[in-house]
Amino acid sequence: MVHKFKIRVRYSETDQMGRVYHGAYASYLEVARVEMLRSLGWSYREMESQGLILPVRDLKVQFLKPVIYDQEIELRTTAKVKSPFRLAFEYDILVENKIVTQAQVELVGVNRGSQSISRLPDQLILDLGGIEND
Amino acid sequence: MVHKFKIRVRYSETDQMGRVYHGAYASYLEVARVEMLRSLGWSYREMESQGLILPVRDLKVQFLKPVIYDQEIELRTTAKVKSPFRLAFEYDILVENKIVTQAQVELVGVNRGSQSISRLPDQLILDLGGIEND
Amino acid sequence: MVHKFKIRVRYSETDQMGRVYHGAYASYLEVARVEMLRSLGWSYREMESQGLILPVRDLKVQFLKPVIYDQEIELRTTAKVKSPFRLAFEYDILVENKIVTQAQVELVGVNRGSQSISRLPDQLILDLGGIEND
Amino acid sequence: MVHKFKIRVRYSETDQMGRVYHGAYASYLEVARVEMLRSLGWSYREMESQGLILPVRDLKVQFLKPVIYDQEIELRTTAKVKSPFRLAFEYDILVENKIVTQAQVELVGVNRGSQSISRLPDQLILDLGGIEND
Repeated sequence: MVHKFKIRVRYSETDQMGRVYHGAYASYLEVARVEMLRSLGWSYREMESQGLILPVRDLKVQFLKPVIYDQEIELRTTAKVKSPFRLAFEYDILVENKIVTQAQVELVGVNRGSQSISRLPDQLILDLGGIEND
Repeated sequence: MVHKFKIRVRYSETDQMGRVYHGAYASYLEVARVEMLRSLGWSYREMESQGLILPVRDLKVQFLKPVIYDQEIELRTTAKVKSPFRLAFEYDILVENKIVTQAQVELVGVNRGSQSISRLPDQLILDLGGIEND
Repeated sequence: MVHKFKIRVRYSETDQMGRVYHGAYASYLEVARVEMLRSLGWSYREMESQGLILPVRDLKVQFLKPVIYDQEIELRTTAKVKSPFRLAFEYDILVENKIVTQAQVELVGVNRGSQSISRLPDQLILDLGGIEND
Repeated sequence: MVHKFKIRVRYSETDQMGRVYHGAYASYLEVARVEMLRSLGWSYREMESQGLILPVRDLKVQFLKPVIYDQEIELRTTAKVKSPFRLAFEYDILVENKIVTQAQVELVGVNRGSQSISRLPDQLILDLGGIEND
């Protein structure tokens, strides 16, 4: 399943090159995966309030073309369950239907109280298509 | 007492006007008051870990001249205790000894657990010169 | 005219108090006034590309209640033309129809090339209700 | 050559997990490479004002351990010239002498006016040890 979500670039996200600052993409990616989870019936806010946090373990971004202020970007997101503890999201970011950025993010389940690694909910794993067999 | 602290502008803090983004000053002000407290022997990190948080209740910033990338700004900070629950910080921000920005920030003591208003430590009030009589 | 616009809080905008970081509101205010201008037929991006920038001269924010992750905030924005060179925006920010934050922002017209003060377009002044008579 | 630079974590860089927000590392990496260039006699600000910008083409970050508010992180940075147009920086980020994060960033030379790919200055290539032979 490819989840699609649009975000308009804010002025605060630009830098003096007249482009979106490269660090700002992290928040776009985060919003897109939260919205993907929401579309599947999952609230990341609730997951956290129930004690499961999903910190990012690995972030990779390829900046192919600059994105500029006020543009509407479309994020196309796919998710994979890599293990009972680990999720991966892959992204294409498009402007006017052309890919301008690609990204891959891996998250790990962590218990908010103990800060130790924690299994993802079984239902979440199912909803994301089950554990991937590479 | 005027506390002085220098910060160099980061690229991430600029926007496409080629200036520091106005929202970025909030973090400069925060760093300067934390360093002022540190210079008086107080660690804001420890205060939080002991259950007292100091959220901002009021923020005012006057942007007199633009600040640009890589400039070193000097923050001159003074503090006043407005009540047993409330602190005020006043700032001049200078570049090459000229004031470019002024700001005023009010913080309120809050108990991290209950989220209710909380008295500031007596010693902190003393260290900041006691409760102000306007 | 009161312009209304909704924004959902991003994870990147929270801090370790579990609230929206106070500095993050600047970008909400900026988005809301750009959308207000858009609703009147004005593109701030185009204004800039034609050489007029609108830097913030004065920012005031009163934080009445905390806003938390994933909440949808509603910004109610009104604009006033203070002079041929100066705009003021006033904001109420609401969560579930209760005011949680108020803010006032003043912008000044500046010529992008010369960096000197510049008149606002006459039509923009008209569209915002004309120059205010206090 | 390994360049070392220390940065103290700001409150604005934390998120509600009580850690540094993963997107905030991009600005740490940027500061560290600019300081590395400065230590070699190069001002990135001047390079830009002379028309050469160095946008990020590729960003990779591995988050091994959380970094928290007020910690002082040490960035150990090495640089490689991949081609006359392309620089790579590799980073270890340490807290109390233990690696907590690793990162790799690739930048490409771009002419600010034409926005086309641009050669790096010969002297910069020499100062960074010449073009790498893999």
